Amino acid sequence: MSSMYLSALKLSIFGQSHGPCVGAVLDGLPAGEAVDLDALHAFLRRRAPGQSELTSARKEEDLPQLLSGLSQGVTCGAPLAIVLPNADAQPGDYDSLRDAPRPGHADFTAHVKFKGFEDAAGGGHFSGRLTAALCAAGGICLQILARRGIAVGAHLLRVGEVADVPFDPVCLTRETLLAPGNSAFPALDGQAAECMRQTIRAAKQAQDSVGAEVECAALGVPAGLGDPLFDGMENRIARIAYAIPGVKGVEFGGGFALSRMRGSEANDPFLCQDGAVRTRTNRAGGILGGITTGMPLLYRAAVKPTPTIGHPQQSVCLRTGEPVTLCAHGRHDPCIALRAVPCFEAALALALLDAMLERCSTPLGGIVHEP
Amino acid sequence: MSSMYLSALKLSIFGQSHGPCVGAVLDGLPAGEAVDLDALHAFLRRRAPGQSELTSARKEEDLPQLLSGLSQGVTCGAPLAIVLPNADAQPGDYDSLRDAPRPGHADFTAHVKFKGFEDAAGGGHFSGRLTAALCAAGGICLQILARRGIAVGAHLLRVGEVADVPFDPVCLTRETLLAPGNSAFPALDGQAAECMRQTIRAAKQAQDSVGAEVECAALGVPAGLGDPLFDGMENRIARIAYAIPGVKGVEFGGGFALSRMRGSEANDPFLCQDGAVRTRTNRAGGILGGITTGMPLLYRAAVKPTPTIGHPQQSVCLRTGEPVTLCAHGRHDPCIALRAVPCFEAALALALLDAMLERCSTPLGGIVHEP
Amino acid sequence: MSSMYLSALKLSIFGQSHGPCVGAVLDGLPAGEAVDLDALHAFLRRRAPGQSELTSARKEEDLPQLLSGLSQGVTCGAPLAIVLPNADAQPGDYDSLRDAPRPGHADFTAHVKFKGFEDAAGGGHFSGRLTAALCAAGGICLQILARRGIAVGAHLLRVGEVADVPFDPVCLTRETLLAPGNSAFPALDGQAAECMRQTIRAAKQAQDSVGAEVECAALGVPAGLGDPLFDGMENRIARIAYAIPGVKGVEFGGGFALSRMRGSEANDPFLCQDGAVRTRTNRAGGILGGITTGMPLLYRAAVKPTPTIGHPQQSVCLRTGEPVTLCAHGRHDPCIALRAVPCFEAALALALLDAMLERCSTPLGGIVHEP
Amino acid sequence: MSSMYLSALKLSIFGQSHGPCVGAVLDGLPAGEAVDLDALHAFLRRRAPGQSELTSARKEEDLPQLLSGLSQGVTCGAPLAIVLPNADAQPGDYDSLRDAPRPGHADFTAHVKFKGFEDAAGGGHFSGRLTAALCAAGGICLQILARRGIAVGAHLLRVGEVADVPFDPVCLTRETLLAPGNSAFPALDGQAAECMRQTIRAAKQAQDSVGAEVECAALGVPAGLGDPLFDGMENRIARIAYAIPGVKGVEFGGGFALSRMRGSEANDPFLCQDGAVRTRTNRAGGILGGITTGMPLLYRAAVKPTPTIGHPQQSVCLRTGEPVTLCAHGRHDPCIALRAVPCFEAALALALLDAMLERCSTPLGGIVHEP
Repeated sequence: MSSMYLSALKLSIFGQSHGPCVGAVLDGLPAGEAVDLDALHAFLRRRAPGQSELTSARKEEDLPQLLSGLSQGVTCGAPLAIVLPNADAQPGDYDSLRDAPRPGHADFTAHVKFKGFEDAAGGGHFSGRLTAALCAAGGICLQILARRGIAVGAHLLRVGEVADVPFDPVCLTRETLLAPGNSAFPALDGQAAECMRQTIRAAKQAQDSVGAEVECAALGVPAGLGDPLFDGMENRIARIAYAIPGVKGVEFGGGFALSRMRGSEANDPFLCQDGAVRTRTNRAGGILGGITTGMPLLYRAAVKPTPTIGHPQQSVCLRTGEPVTLCAHGRHDPCIALRAVPCFEAALALALLDAMLERCSTPLGGIVHEP
Repeated sequence: MSSMYLSALKLSIFGQSHGPCVGAVLDGLPAGEAVDLDALHAFLRRRAPGQSELTSARKEEDLPQLLSGLSQGVTCGAPLAIVLPNADAQPGDYDSLRDAPRPGHADFTAHVKFKGFEDAAGGGHFSGRLTAALCAAGGICLQILARRGIAVGAHLLRVGEVADVPFDPVCLTRETLLAPGNSAFPALDGQAAECMRQTIRAAKQAQDSVGAEVECAALGVPAGLGDPLFDGMENRIARIAYAIPGVKGVEFGGGFALSRMRGSEANDPFLCQDGAVRTRTNRAGGILGGITTGMPLLYRAAVKPTPTIGHPQQSVCLRTGEPVTLCAHGRHDPCIALRAVPCFEAALALALLDAMLERCSTPLGGIVHEP
Repeated sequence: MSSMYLSALKLSIFGQSHGPCVGAVLDGLPAGEAVDLDALHAFLRRRAPGQSELTSARKEEDLPQLLSGLSQGVTCGAPLAIVLPNADAQPGDYDSLRDAPRPGHADFTAHVKFKGFEDAAGGGHFSGRLTAALCAAGGICLQILARRGIAVGAHLLRVGEVADVPFDPVCLTRETLLAPGNSAFPALDGQAAECMRQTIRAAKQAQDSVGAEVECAALGVPAGLGDPLFDGMENRIARIAYAIPGVKGVEFGGGFALSRMRGSEANDPFLCQDGAVRTRTNRAGGILGGITTGMPLLYRAAVKPTPTIGHPQQSVCLRTGEPVTLCAHGRHDPCIALRAVPCFEAALALALLDAMLERCSTPLGGIVHEP
Repeated sequence: MSSMYLSALKLSIFGQSHGPCVGAVLDGLPAGEAVDLDALHAFLRRRAPGQSELTSARKEEDLPQLLSGLSQGVTCGAPLAIVLPNADAQPGDYDSLRDAPRPGHADFTAHVKFKGFEDAAGGGHFSGRLTAALCAAGGICLQILARRGIAVGAHLLRVGEVADVPFDPVCLTRETLLAPGNSAFPALDGQAAECMRQTIRAAKQAQDSVGAEVECAALGVPAGLGDPLFDGMENRIARIAYAIPGVKGVEFGGGFALSRMRGSEANDPFLCQDGAVRTRTNRAGGILGGITTGMPLLYRAAVKPTPTIGHPQQSVCLRTGEPVTLCAHGRHDPCIALRAVPCFEAALALALLDAMLERCSTPLGGIVHEP
């Protein structure tokens, strides 16, 4: 198995939900990049639990500890190792689940794959807790991208049937892009935010959970990032986004809606604006042939409802095969997507910085002029 | 850049639309596997052009030539190299496009990335023609999987607004799964097929193209394949599926619909059937925590309309920045999804065989008992 | 840059000589493997400094801390993260070196590569200190291999001109193989050990250092591990061995001596013994065509003298270009090879377990018989 | 198994000794690089057989056929696929070997690994014939490096006990470096060349073969290429060099001799020359901490004698275990090292270009200034 994303940027994620910590090793960053730990902590707080009645009661400060990779406050070229302690682990909550897998969760498949040796507490390595490590790595990438004029943001596009206003694929501004991250609830429209809150509250009261859709975008992306075939931007982003537990669908630009259109509607006409080639519409979501066009990059992800719910559910005993009725007790979120919003920003930041680090023809040019 | 999918199975795809050939190197296959070249050719014929008025007029036999990897008709452990000659290349058709990129196509981004050195003829390495190589590699995987009781099939779930009946995520039979591949048009319902034909024909007559949605599934998949985080089955499949030109969305099981549900609806209850753990519903599409459950594996992909259309479109001259009106002349498909159907089977077969080859704990066990 | 060894087994090494710690993430281990932390600590003690007047005065207990990967004392399939705190860091010792690179050390090249942002203290990420992380990962592999009847050992074959008795490539016993690791000084012959001690002491007294050659071997290796071309056992072992600072040569079996022989001498005749195919001699060092033969696996590495010495040396100021005379003050080993001996065992253990995990044809066979 | 070298540059090698061809896919080259096919052919002729009584009688023109990757004579960013037909295959020569493995060859280990399904003819995928594909890929890298002022050359440093004059690690000139490649026999000293010829001829007359040592160097290498730990230049070069059949030892700079020195001898003093930092001696072979110093890069490889010899040898029947006496009949070289010389140049060129393509901090800088 591999919990690594390996490209020009190499990310290794480790930890279990109720082990001593979760963490990440990020290898391949350029040297000389400042890392603002306060800003990183603030970013991690956006996904940290225990902050409202809409999220899990688990209390995690998620203060990032850097074990390596910095010298005098900037990256020194060595791998960056970050650890986030698990302060509020309660493995005991899950003892009853060892034999009865939670429907919709990885308990059963982890049991089959790891032959009963898996760490069952809270999903172990399969827990959403691991996304804290993803955000720690992605948060550092966000800082490096920001210094290069690239902004990344995301919001809850829909919770259940309650929809927020979507990002404008052509005229999206930095203010709009970054607003949800700076507000108490990650939505653009205040009224939608309030309805989403109610939807989540209602699900929680019903011992249930609710799914949601997240929209994520980047501005200031240079044209020419990504590759044909297996390393296109869609491939890279999807590969990371599907590492976020509960994601069951990912689409770019017009996405599935494009499959209902004709070419004359779906194609984005080219035009020249201030000396740069742009497109009038942006149904491609800023990606053509796997490579960035320079237009805003947009993708959406479908996040299923939290599988762990208090509501009684049918399961089986893995030892005896007998039917079991489960009522989960562990602390959990009524809507994981709420806390997952920054995770999608992290995923996009990782994919973008990775693709920037791979623009391999440049250094060769550079080397010609070397003494 | 990398046109390689690298895991336990290593696939390298090469070629350009109007070069001498397209091809693939497939490394990591077990030794001793028979390769039925006639069956492979038959599979390739399903995506080959020039077979009806609904597809491109380009005539390609796509007879696979094996350059290496076989000894006495079975894999010998050496990499398999397959070449498909480009018999009907007409690079001249594209001379006019060198400076005016086709909207919705990779012409512009390839130009930026490769600094004007790209092969512009028919999209060069970005052409749908490259999927012939993907199918050649995937077709061999399909044969190896079939010998192990794993069947893979796909159909056009929707063309524009015309929908076929979906695969049943729980009761899908091999007959139903393989039917579309064996019929003249890849749909389950005859009437839907006829309407789809009309929709495609209408788009063609309007010098236009139309998008579609493809559904792909596998039966007989053992539980326990895949990994958490970056190498889950969703990650692997999406990474390959997005290598198929025109794919802008991929979803698994309930996909985006799950984001509208509550956990009590979305979770699949477990039950024990004939001594095996199964789920009553299959909204997970046979994947939990990135790992196969043993239930039918299902995914869907959104394919945008063919970007190349005769209908006049706005573009710009990349030299002067002047506006240009384009009316494409090159041969092209009014609905690329039609020929792409087997490509999604190939993508799933590659991802499945790859994951099977990675079940690395098994050999260690084996080695204990070695003399 | 990459500080990762990536194959079936994925190892990511992080840390700097005078940072808070060094560590490793080991991903891809099978689930259900017990990890004996006391045995691992004992193994790490073999390379730890501060244990005699022949090694650096730096005091490091190197007690391994496992951050993840275990559940109830056995591997749970999740990545294993290990940290070794730097208890006795003294970065101040190296302030004077920021501008004047030590001859023979990575100071200069690190400065060029990382543009002055490198962590210069004690070589930072280039320090031999990083081999503690390599040994932590390799030490766990050694335990897994031992359970499968594979023993790995190493000794100082030569220090300067003082030679130990070499391992017998055909009749090597486990007792002999493991003896150096269990004795106070890693050599087979007591008298050689004493002369080596004197040679190292003499170098130290002269404010100098001395090079050495290490021989490493494995017994019980099954035939059939490794691959042709780039992933042969020689390639894998050399790739890891050259990660040990100071290694400037690696040879297998007869090594360079084979280049002086004729084929009739160099080839190892085959014979059948107790139903197994073996070779009468073992000049191949247990590897043919990159794949193990089942005979003892042998390799040797040349370790240069510690570059950091008290003896005055010529350097230049990287700011002004002015000549500088250096007399190192930092604590260092008069013979790094002495403490590097277990590192070569770790390197071999990693390469062997990795190759065992890749015997990918086995699981496919297994899957045929699956329900 | 993997026959791929995967880094920034991705090389996939395929083919069998007596199959239709051998070939390579080279992915990751920058776009816009001219490829001189005549120069490439001339380079391949240096390792082609059938050119003198000192080499195998097999006649191969080795005219490279490019299947993809070029547009108007320059690289277009798409993968480069090269094929070299096997014109003079005679698989029949090896039928007798199916059951009796040649001592010193990969026959036995290939049989174990691939369970009897291996292509036994002439070693199949394990044949030295595969190095033609390595040279085709490396030859293209040599052209790209040459345009950037980097020259690579190699010579036979020793055949049996006959030694050539070594390259001067400090004062090596381009004329000297490239001379062996341009002369009929790859040695610097004419008299040495003549004695080497006699040594090879004598071995051949005795139905035997002889080993040799090859020295390879590069001039004009910029400082700062390579990485610490697993991707140092030594690691990269060794990983490729060990892919050349028969290589059993690789050393850099002073190599094994350094293990006999003291630090005060082994360290290369720094000095400033014409504004550049250089070293007075070059025992490091142009590599410190895995990273290039800018001094000449030097490495040497030990090549064992050709295992296939007419001289009778002991083997066993893999079916019955009975002893067998082998007298090889297939065409083979009395000294494989003679034709392998350009392979070591190809290996170094691949490793250097790969490391240059990975200098990932440069493009990020570049992107800051992007509109």
